[in-house]
Amino acid sequence: MAERLISVSIVGTGLIGASIGKALCSKKDAFFVKGFDASKENAETALREGAICRIANGVRDALNADAAIIAIPVQFIPKFIKENSALFKKGSVVMDTGSTKELVVNAMKTLPQGVEFVGGHPIAGKEKSGPESASETLFEGKKFVLTKENRLSEKGKNIVLQVINTLNAVPVFMESARHDEMLAYTSHFPYFVSAALFKLVSEKESSLPELFEFAGSGLRDTTRIASGDPVMSYGMLETNKDNIMKALSEFEKVLKEFRTLLESGTLPEKLKAVKERRDEVWK
Amino acid sequence: MAERLISVSIVGTGLIGASIGKALCSKKDAFFVKGFDASKENAETALREGAICRIANGVRDALNADAAIIAIPVQFIPKFIKENSALFKKGSVVMDTGSTKELVVNAMKTLPQGVEFVGGHPIAGKEKSGPESASETLFEGKKFVLTKENRLSEKGKNIVLQVINTLNAVPVFMESARHDEMLAYTSHFPYFVSAALFKLVSEKESSLPELFEFAGSGLRDTTRIASGDPVMSYGMLETNKDNIMKALSEFEKVLKEFRTLLESGTLPEKLKAVKERRDEVWK
Repeated sequence: MAERLISVSIVGTGLIGASIGKALCSKKDAFFVKGFDASKENAETALREGAICRIANGVRDALNADAAIIAIPVQFIPKFIKENSALFKKGSVVMDTGSTKELVVNAMKTLPQGVEFVGGHPIAGKEKSGPESASETLFEGKKFVLTKENRLSEKGKNIVLQVINTLNAVPVFMESARHDEMLAYTSHFPYFVSAALFKLVSEKESSLPELFEFAGSGLRDTTRIASGDPVMSYGMLETNKDNIMKALSEFEKVLKEFRTLLESGTLPEKLKAVKERRDEVWK
Repeated sequence: MAERLISVSIVGTGLIGASIGKALCSKKDAFFVKGFDASKENAETALREGAICRIANGVRDALNADAAIIAIPVQFIPKFIKENSALFKKGSVVMDTGSTKELVVNAMKTLPQGVEFVGGHPIAGKEKSGPESASETLFEGKKFVLTKENRLSEKGKNIVLQVINTLNAVPVFMESARHDEMLAYTSHFPYFVSAALFKLVSEKESSLPELFEFAGSGLRDTTRIASGDPVMSYGMLETNKDNIMKALSEFEKVLKEFRTLLESGTLPEKLKAVKERRDEVWK
């Protein structure tokens, strides 16, 4: 006798949601995937791309599943969870994919007893957004953070791990505060800097109109993440504001230090140390 | 009767010098290339790689050529020119490849009458340094800046343009001050920011030792140029200090503005404008 399929609903069929969907849909003997998106077009594209098996008939239908994966921009997740609190199925497990975890998990904690939850964040992505850019291999070998603050039965935990296993990702349990602090430095603040740097350079176009004709791959790469989806990107900053502000103050200190070192001619040692450590991190 | 070969000496057979040499050596009926490098190993690698036809017997031999291309790190170029001023051949043309131009051109202006000169900067490069990474296609389609401040006869100018043409690069005449200001924004200051950002993140390893395991391609790309050769990179900053300091002050203002906008929740419009302009620049 065939085992019962696990029904999974993907709420938000953008790049991340649709990529998860594609991977799950490739295991038709294990998962049945419903998709829901505020944009009808997004949902239809996801269906056409094979990222979902069918489009849910509204939120109520979407949340009537064994697992609900909330993959909308992170700043909208807490509100979504609170507003639809009563619609999540008893015994089901709710997970998200937002790039910050503390505010999401705080909202999850308000879910009715009997609804299981865990915060999730796959450390993967690309600049191109939308279901048309989805790829079932997006998460291969990548870390998938799960929050230590969770409400999971053995059964619920197994469903979550089975999903992550199907993505060929590596589950890592972590406290949401530690996750948010870490990601502020490795992802969210670098985006902030990248956008600020591009802003600075583009401001110079008024006096140096041919400027970008003389820009090489250095500036292009340094500002690549500034071309990320601005709604998604702003969500990382808005929901991780305290850590961003802390990182910004520290960064201003590093800039001051670099200024002093450049003035006194002693910057080279610092630059050498930076290069050496970086070359160790990315060989 | 065969035309006389143009003898070119490459002083500094690193990535840039050896890449120029390789392109010129591929036209054996037009150029004869001598190479000189303070590192015997670099010169020998360049010879083995086919980037030069022979190693010069010291500086005097090296500078006895129709054209001398000075491709050492930019901070050492003015001193090299002044110290060897008497050794440059009358009627020959001196060009450099340094990433800043004003200090170099000021030194070139002190060359004896009869020695021609023009400052040069090919807008090309890669992270890997040294003659073993040299490529004759490195400059293909790339701009090659030539300074408007120059001392060039028709013959000297033709030699320079013939060299650039052989690289398949595009010559652009420009004032050195304008070049240096522009490159500060498109290249040198982005390096400064990139190094400072990596410094900030790596400082957090003391409290978050697993930090880099959670870093994705965003941080990697944003800090890629921080892995450039630190001697070369520092040279760009040191010889363009005034523009770097100006850019730094302006950047600090942009960061302050972004902080205020993030606090007040009005950052999204700015981020959207940044993304839109960047997407126009790099399609």
